[in-house]
Amino acid sequence: MREVEVRALVMDPTQNMPVLLLRDPQSKKVVPVWIGQPEATSIAMIMQQREFPRPLAHDLIKAILKSLGGDLDMIVIDSIQDSTYFATLYVRDHTGKTHEIDARPSDSIAIALRLGSPIYVSDEVFHVAAVEMPTEDDGDQNEDRFRAFVESEMKLADFKRFVSEGGV
Amino acid sequence: MREVEVRALVMDPTQNMPVLLLRDPQSKKVVPVWIGQPEATSIAMIMQQREFPRPLAHDLIKAILKSLGGDLDMIVIDSIQDSTYFATLYVRDHTGKTHEIDARPSDSIAIALRLGSPIYVSDEVFHVAAVEMPTEDDGDQNEDRFRAFVESEMKLADFKRFVSEGGV
Repeated sequence: MREVEVRALVMDPTQNMPVLLLRDPQSKKVVPVWIGQPEATSIAMIMQQREFPRPLAHDLIKAILKSLGGDLDMIVIDSIQDSTYFATLYVRDHTGKTHEIDARPSDSIAIALRLGSPIYVSDEVFHVAAVEMPTEDDGDQNEDRFRAFVESEMKLADFKRFVSEGGV
Repeated sequence: MREVEVRALVMDPTQNMPVLLLRDPQSKKVVPVWIGQPEATSIAMIMQQREFPRPLAHDLIKAILKSLGGDLDMIVIDSIQDSTYFATLYVRDHTGKTHEIDARPSDSIAIALRLGSPIYVSDEVFHVAAVEMPTEDDGDQNEDRFRAFVESEMKLADFKRFVSEGGV
């Protein structure tokens, strides 16, 4: 199991579907996760530090957790079956007991980003889904290299989906 | 304040937007609430007693509430400002204390239906938004009368939106 960071949220034009790129800081590899538009909007709001005029469902989850004295210890993207990723929320109650709740990765990440909780990917998922990503220690070229990556490497990796540009 | 039931979820083709019709059993009037597509999908699943293969955000809210020993006492659609409805979740924690959480009506109703919690509309909202609906004590004609209602009465009520047919 390794902790990952949300590196980018990009659009896959062939599927017209948002893709989250989760990056492992050690290996520099990324795990792409295709998600739905509503969840992408919710994640983009947090990544851009913007707020919707009205609370979204993930904001309610944060508010409910806090009201009930609970917290989110972590989320884990733990398995992949027939191209579907499965995740688990590790919710801690007021007594310190942890409850495991089955969830989609998209909801899990939207909630984790709101609560500042760590995001993990299981070794199983990492080995199946992770792809190489260019190193990012070259200052101004970061963005160009990242764009070049999403325009070429993911295609080479035969993901059958072509991620063309950043932003949602 | 009066308790309402979710009478129908219909499509407004002029706005290409789902509309929830909340019915007051006493007066037979309904309050139409325009909602987003993701929330409509979530509500339709529950109304049709179907389940998504993977949990939706509202399913997570139910699971989290239950894990933390909480419950949802009720939801109240309490005000309307610039055509936007505001709602409040009344969440009870394990000590019995109630917490009020600001929410959109669509999320609130999707959660209330999952937890079997009552749905209320404030008098303010009811007086501004409620419209007449035909009585439903005439058996087979129910559906026709209901369709006639959504095709005519709501237009007459100058809601500027024309609800043409049932179902999502």
